Amino acid sequence: MPEAVNRQCLLVKRPVGRPKDSDFEYREIDIPEPGEGEVLLRILYALIDPAQRGWMDGDGNYFEPSPLGEPMRSGIIAKVVKSNSNSHPVGQYVMGIGGWTDYVIAREGTIDPIPYDGSQDIRAFSHALGTKGATAYFGLFEVGSLKEGEQVLVSSAAGAVGSLVVQLAKIKGCRVVGIAGGPEKCRWVLDELGADAVIDYRATEDKSAAIAEHFPNGLDVYFDNVGGEILEAAMDNLALGARIAICGMISGYNESDTPGPKNMWNLLVKRARIEGFLVADYRPRYHESQAAIGAWIDQGKIKYKIDERKGFEKLLETLNCLFDGNHDGRLMVKLTDDDHDAA
Amino acid sequence: MPEAVNRQCLLVKRPVGRPKDSDFEYREIDIPEPGEGEVLLRILYALIDPAQRGWMDGDGNYFEPSPLGEPMRSGIIAKVVKSNSNSHPVGQYVMGIGGWTDYVIAREGTIDPIPYDGSQDIRAFSHALGTKGATAYFGLFEVGSLKEGEQVLVSSAAGAVGSLVVQLAKIKGCRVVGIAGGPEKCRWVLDELGADAVIDYRATEDKSAAIAEHFPNGLDVYFDNVGGEILEAAMDNLALGARIAICGMISGYNESDTPGPKNMWNLLVKRARIEGFLVADYRPRYHESQAAIGAWIDQGKIKYKIDERKGFEKLLETLNCLFDGNHDGRLMVKLTDDDHDAA
Repeated sequence: MPEAVNRQCLLVKRPVGRPKDSDFEYREIDIPEPGEGEVLLRILYALIDPAQRGWMDGDGNYFEPSPLGEPMRSGIIAKVVKSNSNSHPVGQYVMGIGGWTDYVIAREGTIDPIPYDGSQDIRAFSHALGTKGATAYFGLFEVGSLKEGEQVLVSSAAGAVGSLVVQLAKIKGCRVVGIAGGPEKCRWVLDELGADAVIDYRATEDKSAAIAEHFPNGLDVYFDNVGGEILEAAMDNLALGARIAICGMISGYNESDTPGPKNMWNLLVKRARIEGFLVADYRPRYHESQAAIGAWIDQGKIKYKIDERKGFEKLLETLNCLFDGNHDGRLMVKLTDDDHDAA
Repeated sequence: MPEAVNRQCLLVKRPVGRPKDSDFEYREIDIPEPGEGEVLLRILYALIDPAQRGWMDGDGNYFEPSPLGEPMRSGIIAKVVKSNSNSHPVGQYVMGIGGWTDYVIAREGTIDPIPYDGSQDIRAFSHALGTKGATAYFGLFEVGSLKEGEQVLVSSAAGAVGSLVVQLAKIKGCRVVGIAGGPEKCRWVLDELGADAVIDYRATEDKSAAIAEHFPNGLDVYFDNVGGEILEAAMDNLALGARIAICGMISGYNESDTPGPKNMWNLLVKRARIEGFLVADYRPRYHESQAAIGAWIDQGKIKYKIDERKGFEKLLETLNCLFDGNHDGRLMVKLTDDDHDAA
């Protein structure tokens, strides 16, 4: 094994607002030994997700809180390096929930093998071929009940989920307007993802008017990744029978008292629906989205963008990029210096 | 015919906030003559509905605005007194949209005959056997997707729709908590409608805590008749997969800037849904709710309460009772001095 130590970044305080260095502690400890029915994983990538901000809180509303004094909980792509489990032989690649640490013990049944054979981009299993893809797929087609040819608005359209939503809606023959921040991202949404139009929220004072301009007859589906004022602006512009799928509310994560939309009345006027969902509820059906999206990737109809940072010391900084909008694609931190199969 | 004149109350101004006398004008004109394919209706009851406040506005978002200079638009129970239509013989009882006037011309196809044979309470066709019943029935069972044995919260539980919702949910074997204003209404909800518990919103400072006390594990369905702070309090107390059916928001009708719920985040956490609906969309299926509720009335399982006011001059005063909470059951104004069949 290339490293003799096991680096860990521990959550030691429940952050108030934006997480700070002092909420964490760094240590190096020995690499643990797997027990019966367990495996030792070398973590290749720590995935950076909005949900992690929720896990840092102690209220336990969303998921179990990430325990204090342990490595910050994190989605991972990892490789089995020692095994006492028939389900997970050495050399198998897996995804699951791990932590900010080089090595972690996992019990069989708590990790999912991924069909990586060295020829694909392994990182796609945490994006279009993983839960990001499932989030876009089930959020748009099931929660949003998207129908052919409808009018679709997508916030965070340059983000991991949003960029897939834009492309899935285009595949379904819809007219799609994305919302993104800054000229570079907007160009990407328009030119690369194929959105019909894009709204740069940073350059747009009156968001409701901007949306109205693009949807003179109202929007049928709004895929909401942000909540807050953009949700309210979208609710000003609903077509009859509109559906809003609420997938995340990153803009409200660090605020305790986000004001709600003043125009709830429009839900009644437009017979419209707002529905929140968690992709984990669709886990038994992930193979459906993986199969569909995998085929569209092969046909060149779906692109995805990875924003990979390198190095253990970049974990917290990378997490905070989520809240600054200062990233470009699905965020992850590569913990190894080597290639994926080095461990 | 007993009256030689046709009294009318015209909407002449778009009210700001609460409608005032000066927004209306009274006049007496001749009784009109029906043309080909038309009938002359004697209006027996003018139905008083929250939607009328919306019709007074000029924005046309909800329904076509009630035109200025014409009798204020109103739901009606009426009798055909002259007919040039084979579909509507003289003596037929009908419901539909008319106005604040003794007599009105209606074109065939724009009014619905009601199966009143003199033995029933004709007013029930504007309540449990009419759109109020359909609102409760489709709102609870379709929009709310109510399942046997669930935990149900109903606001305006002493109102026309709310009181039916309470009883329908009880018939479905659910645990039902009603919200009503004042001890008298609360007693009625509990003792007569059979709710399991009731919250007197006038006597309750912390509505969220009061709801939490009744639903320690969260509520499955909230039938929302009011919006505003009670909606927000209900959203604090959702079970996983909860559904909120938004049927009206009377508390926000007279305010231009009702604050929205601050806890939209809970929709995501609880994978919950808010959906607005207008009963008119279910019109082709009204016979379903009429049949089901009619049978339950016969079996003594459903009660309804009519708050009837007498006299043409009571129209505006009665409408404003809606906004004061100062009424007790489904509001209507009887325009004739005689029995239903006198005209």
